[in-house]
Amino acid sequence: MDTIGVLGGMGPAATVDFFARLVTLVGAERDQDHPPCLLYSATQIPDRTRHLTADGIDPTAELQRAARVLEQGGAGLIAIPCNSAHAFYGAIADAVSIPVLDMIELAAVQVRRSFEAGTSVGILAASGTIKMGLYDQRLQAAGLVPLRPGENAQSGVMEAIWAIKAGSRGPDRRLILAIDELVDRGVGVIVLGCTELPLAIDQSSAVVPIVDGTAVLARAALELAGVTINDHEQAREAGH
Amino acid sequence: MDTIGVLGGMGPAATVDFFARLVTLVGAERDQDHPPCLLYSATQIPDRTRHLTADGIDPTAELQRAARVLEQGGAGLIAIPCNSAHAFYGAIADAVSIPVLDMIELAAVQVRRSFEAGTSVGILAASGTIKMGLYDQRLQAAGLVPLRPGENAQSGVMEAIWAIKAGSRGPDRRLILAIDELVDRGVGVIVLGCTELPLAIDQSSAVVPIVDGTAVLARAALELAGVTINDHEQAREAGH
Repeated sequence: MDTIGVLGGMGPAATVDFFARLVTLVGAERDQDHPPCLLYSATQIPDRTRHLTADGIDPTAELQRAARVLEQGGAGLIAIPCNSAHAFYGAIADAVSIPVLDMIELAAVQVRRSFEAGTSVGILAASGTIKMGLYDQRLQAAGLVPLRPGENAQSGVMEAIWAIKAGSRGPDRRLILAIDELVDRGVGVIVLGCTELPLAIDQSSAVVPIVDGTAVLARAALELAGVTINDHEQAREAGH
Repeated sequence: MDTIGVLGGMGPAATVDFFARLVTLVGAERDQDHPPCLLYSATQIPDRTRHLTADGIDPTAELQRAARVLEQGGAGLIAIPCNSAHAFYGAIADAVSIPVLDMIELAAVQVRRSFEAGTSVGILAASGTIKMGLYDQRLQAAGLVPLRPGENAQSGVMEAIWAIKAGSRGPDRRLILAIDELVDRGVGVIVLGCTELPLAIDQSSAVVPIVDGTAVLARAALELAGVTINDHEQAREAGH
């Protein structure tokens, strides 16, 4: 089994969620059945959204530095449980010689696997991810029709994400409104394109199917590391 | 803020629990308010209990290697959320030039802070930790009276710990029996001296106060890293 490198801390609670999934998904009887994992909660990386949407500091150099720490520490691959950080994906991948998983590509492929071409896909994501069209490009390339929330709803989504980063948990009215708006406009599925969102959205009670980027990335990282995924967990997730 | 190094993976779920507490305890408004954390879930470290109680492989060299990975990756201190690994504390601390927190010492001091000298303290821990007397020594040095479960109850505790490592969660009859036995023998407080145990013991409903080594270690790591701890969480924990 390869050591899974996790370039995290964006935010830290989303990284805890991702790490917890890596552990839960493995069908392990003992510690040694789990893959090694080197996780860098690199919280001092400048905010991605503030750089992508305003005049915040460019996080590229810090993202590259963190990726190198993981490679030098023995990671065999890198997963980045932050969608906005994928705006810098090329620079991160160029900084190391180990594979870096592309969560956005993986999520788009996962949607396409479960839904037919032409399906409208709602995108819930931070405003930097939205502005850069990270999901739009990948979903369109997969033959799907991306739909963003309207401007007001998107402001609400971003406020909800800041609130989650500040410790808020549980259903958030702003997220419910954005989902309702997307559903009213006919989306057949919603992508959670921000790793804070699973902390505040009850996926089991959603009115349309949800594809959760964090879950997709966890499965892909385990697969690439050569780990068998727990079928019981797979069955439980499918029941959602 | 220093980077908190976490020498983990013993087991991985206990490490998730420890990392989650590091994140939750910080009174953070944004990602950058959290300390950086470099966490190595070094799952391939040979089992500590099997070495301490039977003929399992000596984990010392792997523990030292993992500590060096953290130091080289920029950690300013190391926390080890595994009590049994503290049987090798000296060798780990010798392998690096950054401070390594001693969870067992910290937990003993925490008990002494809240209870008067002469108090009987029940120890719930893995059989390697018990056999090596890790808690007995520290509690006695603090003027407290350590009490271990009887032989049968201790076998039950160890079986429960293996079950937690294999994914079991929630109340475990074997742990309840061991706690009842210690309470019948007059302990005034119980120390959770194994980081798997908080995953299967409801501390809020315990019949005697519980001191949880994982919580003590998380607070000490944040304090040493120069981080302010969230008072709201402190209040909530005190209410337990």
